[in-house]
Amino acid sequence: MSKANLFYAQSGGVTAVINASACGVIETARQHRDKIGKVYAGLNGIVGALNEDLIDTGKESTATIAALRSTPAGAFGSCRYKLRSYSENRREYERLMEVFRTHNIRYFLYNGGGDSQDTANKISQFSQQQGFPIACIGIPKTVDNDLPITDNCPGFGSVAKYVAVSIREAGLDVASMCESSTKVFVMEVMGRHAGWIAGSAGLSTEQDGDAPHIILLPEIPFDKQKFLKKVSGCVKRYGYCAIVVSEGAQYKNGKFLADAGGKDAFGHVQLGGVAPFLANMIKDSLGYKYHWAVADYLQRSARHIASRTDVEQAYAVGKAAVDFALQGKDAVMPTIIRGKGKKYTWRIGEAKLADVANVEKMMPRNYITPDGFHITEKARAYFAPLIQGEDYPAYKNGIPQYARLKKILEKKKLQKWKAA
Amino acid sequence: MSKANLFYAQSGGVTAVINASACGVIETARQHRDKIGKVYAGLNGIVGALNEDLIDTGKESTATIAALRSTPAGAFGSCRYKLRSYSENRREYERLMEVFRTHNIRYFLYNGGGDSQDTANKISQFSQQQGFPIACIGIPKTVDNDLPITDNCPGFGSVAKYVAVSIREAGLDVASMCESSTKVFVMEVMGRHAGWIAGSAGLSTEQDGDAPHIILLPEIPFDKQKFLKKVSGCVKRYGYCAIVVSEGAQYKNGKFLADAGGKDAFGHVQLGGVAPFLANMIKDSLGYKYHWAVADYLQRSARHIASRTDVEQAYAVGKAAVDFALQGKDAVMPTIIRGKGKKYTWRIGEAKLADVANVEKMMPRNYITPDGFHITEKARAYFAPLIQGEDYPAYKNGIPQYARLKKILEKKKLQKWKAA
Repeated sequence: MSKANLFYAQSGGVTAVINASACGVIETARQHRDKIGKVYAGLNGIVGALNEDLIDTGKESTATIAALRSTPAGAFGSCRYKLRSYSENRREYERLMEVFRTHNIRYFLYNGGGDSQDTANKISQFSQQQGFPIACIGIPKTVDNDLPITDNCPGFGSVAKYVAVSIREAGLDVASMCESSTKVFVMEVMGRHAGWIAGSAGLSTEQDGDAPHIILLPEIPFDKQKFLKKVSGCVKRYGYCAIVVSEGAQYKNGKFLADAGGKDAFGHVQLGGVAPFLANMIKDSLGYKYHWAVADYLQRSARHIASRTDVEQAYAVGKAAVDFALQGKDAVMPTIIRGKGKKYTWRIGEAKLADVANVEKMMPRNYITPDGFHITEKARAYFAPLIQGEDYPAYKNGIPQYARLKKILEKKKLQKWKAA
Repeated sequence: MSKANLFYAQSGGVTAVINASACGVIETARQHRDKIGKVYAGLNGIVGALNEDLIDTGKESTATIAALRSTPAGAFGSCRYKLRSYSENRREYERLMEVFRTHNIRYFLYNGGGDSQDTANKISQFSQQQGFPIACIGIPKTVDNDLPITDNCPGFGSVAKYVAVSIREAGLDVASMCESSTKVFVMEVMGRHAGWIAGSAGLSTEQDGDAPHIILLPEIPFDKQKFLKKVSGCVKRYGYCAIVVSEGAQYKNGKFLADAGGKDAFGHVQLGGVAPFLANMIKDSLGYKYHWAVADYLQRSARHIASRTDVEQAYAVGKAAVDFALQGKDAVMPTIIRGKGKKYTWRIGEAKLADVANVEKMMPRNYITPDGFHITEKARAYFAPLIQGEDYPAYKNGIPQYARLKKILEKKKLQKWKAA
């Protein structure tokens, strides 16, 4: 299998460090020119393979590839596109095989979350059935931290650091203003199904009274009366109340808080997210002046405040994926294994894609305080190492200088793909 | 006037660097122990003077005071409280004089925006009428950058850096996702009356196609058709459209966009800000999938990404205020004067409070491109130096360590103040 080519693609929502994984893949592959020929990256993820839009990363300079390590978002383009099963859409699998065969691609590295690991697994199976076996290696990535087996997911540590730093800073702001103005601040963070991101904001609380005072998680059904009582208690005790809410916060019946409002004057579903919804609820019931923020993409693209641990792990799983491929492995994903000692250590492990695909890991109940409004010491011990260290990008003119790729496409040899 | 005491207070909305000014005040005052006795800080601003809540900063260690330089928000507490005129509320002025006289306070340093400089000016006048002259020195502070005379306002450079960095990062995120998902991203920033903050986001655009593609400013009346045309043009040309909108964006008739919606199902005024309003407008008219963010307090408290230039200037105006007071000046405010050379230089100047009070400086029309959607080279030349340099706070356990003050109050000698 000498000089086979490698195909790498980014999938799903991007992170501050997914390009660090790309950097790990490409730099490692370049060290094995005897075994790996070209390293292609899919333009906009797997869609790039279907369209035969193969970025030749060999055309990018060493410096540009190195700069990927400190560049947020998906430098080659990502996509929200899930391959269906063979029975539903065999044509797509056949097209992928055609593209891979035509361009002598024998390594497929897919950088994404649970859905993507499922896709990689299916492609592995299909390629074997077709007699053109491709080493399919998953590379974990998700801000949601919800992949099983791996101790944590690259991408999560940086968003955790962002939310912990942001609520610490905004909390000081509210504390400054609360005597005569704003008394409540609500910050909405990502996490539609699991509360990992919102929970990590709890690291900001180092002493009694530190923000956030309340964390609302999808794992704990929202109880309006209990919540309002807690808010007024915080205002009485600390002078203000800083709240972090997961976008996935929900009622006992599974309905999202953010969906609970009505329509606006134009008949649209309520525009705001859960943060303005809660802020208004507090204003109506308790009368406190409020401010709210919705971090949205800012939180997952905030490379300027990335966790060094996260960057290192993201790079390491990219590197490991290439190593696995060269070792002849298939249908596996590198994982992060946490060492047992008191001092945080980690090493790379390995999981089968079949075991990773489509499984969501929720935050354990014992990570959450009995009242449901904050995190426990056990959670702190889990979260704390993941946000350790800073890894600042290079600045020019006061602005971070992120990699600008040429994205030169390989010459196409096939007919244009027509999606069904 | 040997060994008179000094009173310092923070006023209005806080910033990432107002404590750097406090640090400049206190460190400088400590170097003049022959002339300045105690340095008091008002607990929650001027309200602290009315209530005789005088924090004795002498009880804070050298290290704590030094840490103020890298601590965001108002460490002593700020307030939204505007003294009325003598004729309306002479009692408040008399109370202030009583507190100042009782605690031998002969220097009053007021760290705030236009309103606060007006207050400082009135106190100066009143103290002279009362035969207990107090040196009243303003210290400029506002993220809004709308004070006259001074070239720029401490606090602005850091929020400018935050918004430029954030839209650069979020822009890369949208660019990654746009092929199959989000095509439009709207980030709302502060600036109720002037577009300085939104305008500064334009620094992120270094090459054609860089985010933000559209900036909406209060200075340019919003034109829906023109705006939507521009959005669809950007999506066609770049694949996506990243928008920065000032909270003060408004129609020709002066009505804020954010106020233009209706009531929600509960009869509340629309919960969302202008970002969700615009995002929805785009979805309705053009059908693009969107994301939006409202940075709110995160932007003005983001000390982790402060501009070094801003920190240095904030410290310098604090220091200069003490120097002015010791030089016997009164009713003045240190300003930033920009040097004339091509290389950015600055020095401290001086303005009369009477000339600063209650004047708002808007962004000049020639800072805005003819189509009203971006900034000109002239604006860039103005903004660029203000975000130069990074000035990272110290981290421990992955989180910035900000000053924790003891805030020990001076013993009260007067009767309790009763607000009218």
